[in-house]
Amino acid sequence: MPRYKLTIEYDGGPYAGWQRQNNAPSVQGAIEAAAEQLDQRPVTVQGAGRTDAGVHALGQVAHLDLVKDLTGDVVRDALNHHLRAEPIAILSAELVSDDFHARFSATRRHYLYRIMDRRPPLTINLGKVWWVPVGLDVEAIHEAAQSLVGQHDFTAFRDTHCQAKSPVKTIDEITLARVGREIHLTCHARSFLHSQVRSITGSLVEVGWGKWSANDFKSVLESADRSRCGPVAPPDGLYLMQVDYSDDTEMTTSVD
Amino acid sequence: MPRYKLTIEYDGGPYAGWQRQNNAPSVQGAIEAAAEQLDQRPVTVQGAGRTDAGVHALGQVAHLDLVKDLTGDVVRDALNHHLRAEPIAILSAELVSDDFHARFSATRRHYLYRIMDRRPPLTINLGKVWWVPVGLDVEAIHEAAQSLVGQHDFTAFRDTHCQAKSPVKTIDEITLARVGREIHLTCHARSFLHSQVRSITGSLVEVGWGKWSANDFKSVLESADRSRCGPVAPPDGLYLMQVDYSDDTEMTTSVD
Repeated sequence: MPRYKLTIEYDGGPYAGWQRQNNAPSVQGAIEAAAEQLDQRPVTVQGAGRTDAGVHALGQVAHLDLVKDLTGDVVRDALNHHLRAEPIAILSAELVSDDFHARFSATRRHYLYRIMDRRPPLTINLGKVWWVPVGLDVEAIHEAAQSLVGQHDFTAFRDTHCQAKSPVKTIDEITLARVGREIHLTCHARSFLHSQVRSITGSLVEVGWGKWSANDFKSVLESADRSRCGPVAPPDGLYLMQVDYSDDTEMTTSVD
Repeated sequence: MPRYKLTIEYDGGPYAGWQRQNNAPSVQGAIEAAAEQLDQRPVTVQGAGRTDAGVHALGQVAHLDLVKDLTGDVVRDALNHHLRAEPIAILSAELVSDDFHARFSATRRHYLYRIMDRRPPLTINLGKVWWVPVGLDVEAIHEAAQSLVGQHDFTAFRDTHCQAKSPVKTIDEITLARVGREIHLTCHARSFLHSQVRSITGSLVEVGWGKWSANDFKSVLESADRSRCGPVAPPDGLYLMQVDYSDDTEMTTSVD
């Protein structure tokens, strides 16, 4: 059976998350339903990252096996046809070898978190950006965030429901910068814990409006004490941007 | 009575346009209702540009007179409070002199049109960008668009319901460029005809996918024949970005 690698964009707003659920709409469930229409049998779609309820993706990756032997472009178009009622788009479908696994073959994941720090509420970007109604010191946030780079016990920035065996992860790079009217946090690592980026972002915003110093932030990380984490940032601003596999490590997705 | 200049952002999607209407929601109507709540009497809000149904704004300008004598920031916050159920935000409110008129004092208007040219449908940007499902030649569009610069009879690119006395307008600048995953058309002029930017954009896309040459486009402009206009681009991708008044002519708004 041919295996296809899908690159997927979605608006996470209407979904209970990536993962298939019995009583709530999910991105995985919607794509599996489309694939079943195409292949005329139940199909399992395996994603690279299980994004939470409301979290968006511009470059989620998944794989599936079909009985039908089709070109990648035909698979992409057929899935998009069956997904036309959903805010989910298959950006590409490529034939890959049997040993490609969207989750376990992934070598790096790239997340973006979008913030607007202004007093007036959001209009155009409602649900797509986190609205913080006070001005933030982006340089202070960027500096504080650098203490996260490298291998750490991220218990303080991990959801209590996280099922990973170890709280130790390695963040390769984290940057904060103003981009037009927004603040963009980008974070790159081989893998992440449940709610890790949102927990980090929420705590960094405490630095941004002056409640915490960079040292306060660092001591929360080092405490490995979940109760010391700041308010977790909402899913609205979070985007899974790209997943890398072995040789393709160049960042190619932008939010524009 | 103090006069205030408002700078306004809105998602045009739910509205029949800027202009107040009897039986349909409008941006002007929503802001006038908020101002009436604030001033406890009927208030007229005069806008710089009468954006069409579904057209967005990041920098619409309007003025209003209040009986109450309040600081600009208090007016901004109070209007935003009364507008909290609407995707409309007052970005700023400033006290201005009695002879300031949002429409007649304006010296330049800046529009942005956002296009995504790709085969997969839109998800995150649904309603905020025009989806063109074929690749476009942006350089060819940019080149063709340069024939619009200067003073011309824009009858070919003017809605038949346009109420302006003359079809002659002057476009100062029009540019097309790829910005991330999108194509951005920006157009700057003292004033525009009804549907002028959408008519121009729709016809330029005919150039972008190779149906028209740059000369075809130019001959449509020169014909002053509305029946030769290409399909009018949808409102989804159009944004009123900024309105200039006498001394402030620097472009300060971006879509990010």
